[in-house]
Amino acid sequence: MLVRSYKDVAAIPVREGVKKRVVIGPKEGVPNFVMRVFDQAPGASSNYHSHNWEHEVFVLTGEGTLVTKDGEIPLKANDVAYVAPHEKHCLTNHGQDTFRFICLVPLRAEGVDTCLVPPRGEDTP
Amino acid sequence: MLVRSYKDVAAIPVREGVKKRVVIGPKEGVPNFVMRVFDQAPGASSNYHSHNWEHEVFVLTGEGTLVTKDGEIPLKANDVAYVAPHEKHCLTNHGQDTFRFICLVPLRAEGVDTCLVPPRGEDTP
Repeated sequence: MLVRSYKDVAAIPVREGVKKRVVIGPKEGVPNFVMRVFDQAPGASSNYHSHNWEHEVFVLTGEGTLVTKDGEIPLKANDVAYVAPHEKHCLTNHGQDTFRFICLVPLRAEGVDTCLVPPRGEDTP
Repeated sequence: MLVRSYKDVAAIPVREGVKKRVVIGPKEGVPNFVMRVFDQAPGASSNYHSHNWEHEVFVLTGEGTLVTKDGEIPLKANDVAYVAPHEKHCLTNHGQDTFRFICLVPLRAEGVDTCLVPPRGEDTP
């Protein structure tokens, strides 16, 4: 059992303009999936990539874009986004404020996937 | 790929004062875990129960309580809560406004667990 503010978890810089908090994850002994919170500064972005696991996203604040092979989809607070395994994607802050979102992945992906750098594997461009 | 506001998902009453939205789940073909959003009216609560899967919770609005065998833990916006498998728990709105939270479960639990009624099984009181 654990309760804390996500703000009490250290935000680790993982790329220019991007910080990551693992708010519920391996340290808590989770058996299946990991909750992370990302902060993207204006203009920051993840790489355009794919992998063999999914993302489940909930947008907390700011304005972003989900870039897909079919185009760009705007994201704002209270939006949810599902990226299925193998779908190419990236998340970008196109607003003036911090773009903050929850991004969940399967346990096996945490430490490999950061929403930020392409993982090694056959799905990576 | 799916993007939508969680508010565009139908909120299904599942108990007095409690509504549930399955915002990313079986209809989207998720392979591992399901994102639900719950609204609890003031005074509403889930049952005190346990089960053999976990909850990963992010509080969006309002003031609630996580009731555990060791006592009650207050919950407010931006708090995260992890309830491990087999831990007895319930979530209650002790505030004056809607208590709204994201609650994720493994895919196998969705349709069985609603955070609201005790599932059948050896862990259920």
